[in-house]
Amino acid sequence: MTQEKLTPALFIGVQGNDYISFGSGQPDLPPPELVFKILPSYRDFRYGLIQGQVPLRKELAKQFKGATEDNIVITNGASEALDLTFKAIAKPGEKILLHQPYYYSYPPILENNYLKPVFTQTIKGKIDITDFDKKVRDCKAVLINSPSNPTGTVQEIKTLKEIEKLCKDLDITIVSDEVYKDLIYVRENYMLHGDHVITINSFSKTFAMCGLRVGYLYSNDPKIVERVVEIKTHSSMNTSILSQEMAYQATKVPKSYITEQTKIWEQRRDAIYEGLVKLGLDLWKPEGAFYVFPKVKNPRKTVWDLFKKHKVITYLGEWFGDDNRIRLSYALDIEKIEEGLKRIDLYFES
Amino acid sequence: MTQEKLTPALFIGVQGNDYISFGSGQPDLPPPELVFKILPSYRDFRYGLIQGQVPLRKELAKQFKGATEDNIVITNGASEALDLTFKAIAKPGEKILLHQPYYYSYPPILENNYLKPVFTQTIKGKIDITDFDKKVRDCKAVLINSPSNPTGTVQEIKTLKEIEKLCKDLDITIVSDEVYKDLIYVRENYMLHGDHVITINSFSKTFAMCGLRVGYLYSNDPKIVERVVEIKTHSSMNTSILSQEMAYQATKVPKSYITEQTKIWEQRRDAIYEGLVKLGLDLWKPEGAFYVFPKVKNPRKTVWDLFKKHKVITYLGEWFGDDNRIRLSYALDIEKIEEGLKRIDLYFES
Repeated sequence: MTQEKLTPALFIGVQGNDYISFGSGQPDLPPPELVFKILPSYRDFRYGLIQGQVPLRKELAKQFKGATEDNIVITNGASEALDLTFKAIAKPGEKILLHQPYYYSYPPILENNYLKPVFTQTIKGKIDITDFDKKVRDCKAVLINSPSNPTGTVQEIKTLKEIEKLCKDLDITIVSDEVYKDLIYVRENYMLHGDHVITINSFSKTFAMCGLRVGYLYSNDPKIVERVVEIKTHSSMNTSILSQEMAYQATKVPKSYITEQTKIWEQRRDAIYEGLVKLGLDLWKPEGAFYVFPKVKNPRKTVWDLFKKHKVITYLGEWFGDDNRIRLSYALDIEKIEEGLKRIDLYFES
Repeated sequence: MTQEKLTPALFIGVQGNDYISFGSGQPDLPPPELVFKILPSYRDFRYGLIQGQVPLRKELAKQFKGATEDNIVITNGASEALDLTFKAIAKPGEKILLHQPYYYSYPPILENNYLKPVFTQTIKGKIDITDFDKKVRDCKAVLINSPSNPTGTVQEIKTLKEIEKLCKDLDITIVSDEVYKDLIYVRENYMLHGDHVITINSFSKTFAMCGLRVGYLYSNDPKIVERVVEIKTHSSMNTSILSQEMAYQATKVPKSYITEQTKIWEQRRDAIYEGLVKLGLDLWKPEGAFYVFPKVKNPRKTVWDLFKKHKVITYLGEWFGDDNRIRLSYALDIEKIEEGLKRIDLYFES
C-alpha cells in the first residue's frame, strides 16, 4: 500500500489489534443472539430458490404496502441487489443520477455495467431539487441514499416527495438504497414509494450481519423482479441458504432491539461529533447512519499519516466524490472512539 | 408454467414429495459431517476480505503448482466466478467460444456482460479440434467444461493439450470450468494449465454444498485477480463468511471421501445408462459429472408430459444448445432412479 494507491479494499477485513478503525461501515456489536440459535441443528445444503427462501421473503414483504413475497428478491448483500437492479433496468450508455457525495461503490457498479454516472451536487449533504431537476431529465434512473453514506444526511421529506413526483412524471426509475433506514436520529425514515421505485436494503447494518451477506430488493413491477431473477439465475444462483436462514431469524427480533441499538449509535454520534468539533474540524452533524464527514487539509496525507503513524484507519473523501473531506465510521465503542480522537488530536497538533 | 415457457429456474429449488427429479444438478447425499461441526460455536459476523478468507485460499492454492493464496478468489459459487472472470477479461462485443452442447448458464452469463457467444460443434460431445481451430481465432477467450454438463463427456487429454498450445500461440484466454473435475469415471482429470488459463471450481458438486454457494477461481496473472477483486468489491463484497468456513472444513476431509463418492456416482451412472439403453434411447455413456443426455422425439412435449403426467422432472436439451435431447441428472439414489425409469418407460409406452 502506498499513499498514492489508497483504496477502500485495502482496509476491508483487515483487523489489527492496536488499530482504531474508523474505516469500514461495520457494526462492532454482534447480531441478535437469535440469529445463531439455529446453527447447531442446521443441516440443509441443497440449492434454494434463486429469488430467495419463501418465509424470509414473506416477512420482508410486510414492510411494503400491498406487497407479497413475489415482490422481493434476496441477494448477496445490498451490493448485489444494486448491481442486479441496474443490470435489469438500464442499457449500456444510459445515465444514472447520483447525489454527491455518494457511497464509493455506486460509480463502479454503474461503470462495470457500462452505465454513466451523472452527479447532482448537494448543499451540506441535502439534495438541491433545482439542480436535481436539471440533471435528472436525461437519466434512466436516479439512486437515492437516505440516510446517506458518507454524509450521515437524511433527506427532507418534502424533497423526497418532490423527487417521487418528478420521477413519476418523467417516467424515471428511483432506486432507493435504504440500508441505513433503521439508523436515523431525527425522525422516522420516509421510504420512497410508488410504481417507479425499487427499494434496496440489507441485514448488514440493522442486524450487524455484514459478513453473512444478505440483502434484498423490492419492486412492485413483476417484470423487473423477473428480469433480476433471470440474471441472478446465471450470475450467482441462490444467496447462501444458511445466511438466509439467519436473516430470517433476525426478522423475529422484537422492534425494541432496533430502538436500543439506535440509542447506542446516537451516543456514539454525539461523542465523535462533539470530539471533532472540539478539535476544530468543520463537519455536519449526522442525522442517520454512522458516519461523520469532516473537512481536512490534504485529506490523502491525513488518511495516510493517521494510518501509518497513529494506527487510525479513516477513509478518503475522494472515494465518495469529495476531495476536501475524510470519512470516519463511528461503528465502534465509546472507549475506542475516544482513544481514536486522542490520536487524531495528536496528529493535528504535530 | 406452460409447455411453451419452460425454463430451468421454474424447477430449481422446487422439492415435491412424490416427484422424481432428474432435473437440477444437485447431489442428494449430504456434505461431509465435518462441514456442520463448526456451526454450534460459530459467532463471526464481520465483513471478510473481498478476495476470501486466507486459510481457505491457502488450502485451495495447494492444487495449483506454484500458487499461493494470492492466486485464488472465493466467490458465490462457480456462477459468480464465471461472471466476474468474463467481466474482468473481456469488453462488450468481444467473442467467447463455447463447445456445444454447453451448460445453460454460459450464453446468458456472456450476454448479460454484452459478450457474444460463438459455438464450436462437438462430435458425440468431444471437441473437434479442426472446427475449434477455425472458430477460436477471433475470440477473446474460450470456455472449456470437462467433464461436461450436460453431456457427461470428458475431453481427451490430447485435445486439451492442443487447446492449451493453440490458445497460448494465439494469446487467447482459456476459462476452464472444472466443477466436475472430481466426478470422473474414466481417468484422472487433466487440469488445463498455463499462463493463459483461469480455472473455475466450486464446493457444490464434490462436497454437495450447492445451497451454500462457495466457488472460486484461480489465475496466475495478478492483474486478472486484482481486477476480479475490484469488481467484486462493489458487486457483492465478500462471499458469506460462514459458507466459506464450512468450505474450509470440507478441505480437511480425507481424499477417500471423494473416491467413495465417485463409486456411488458410478453405480448410479451404470443404472441409468443401462436403464435408458434398455428403453431404446440413443445416448452417450457418461465419463464424468452426473448427467445423461439422450435423444428423444419432441423433447419439449416429453419434458412437459413427464412432469405433468408422471411427476418426473427432466431438463430440455434446447437449454443446453441441443434441440433433439433431454438432460437427466442422476444425482439421486438407485431406488429413485429405478422408479423414475419405470415412469419414463410408462410414458414412452403410452
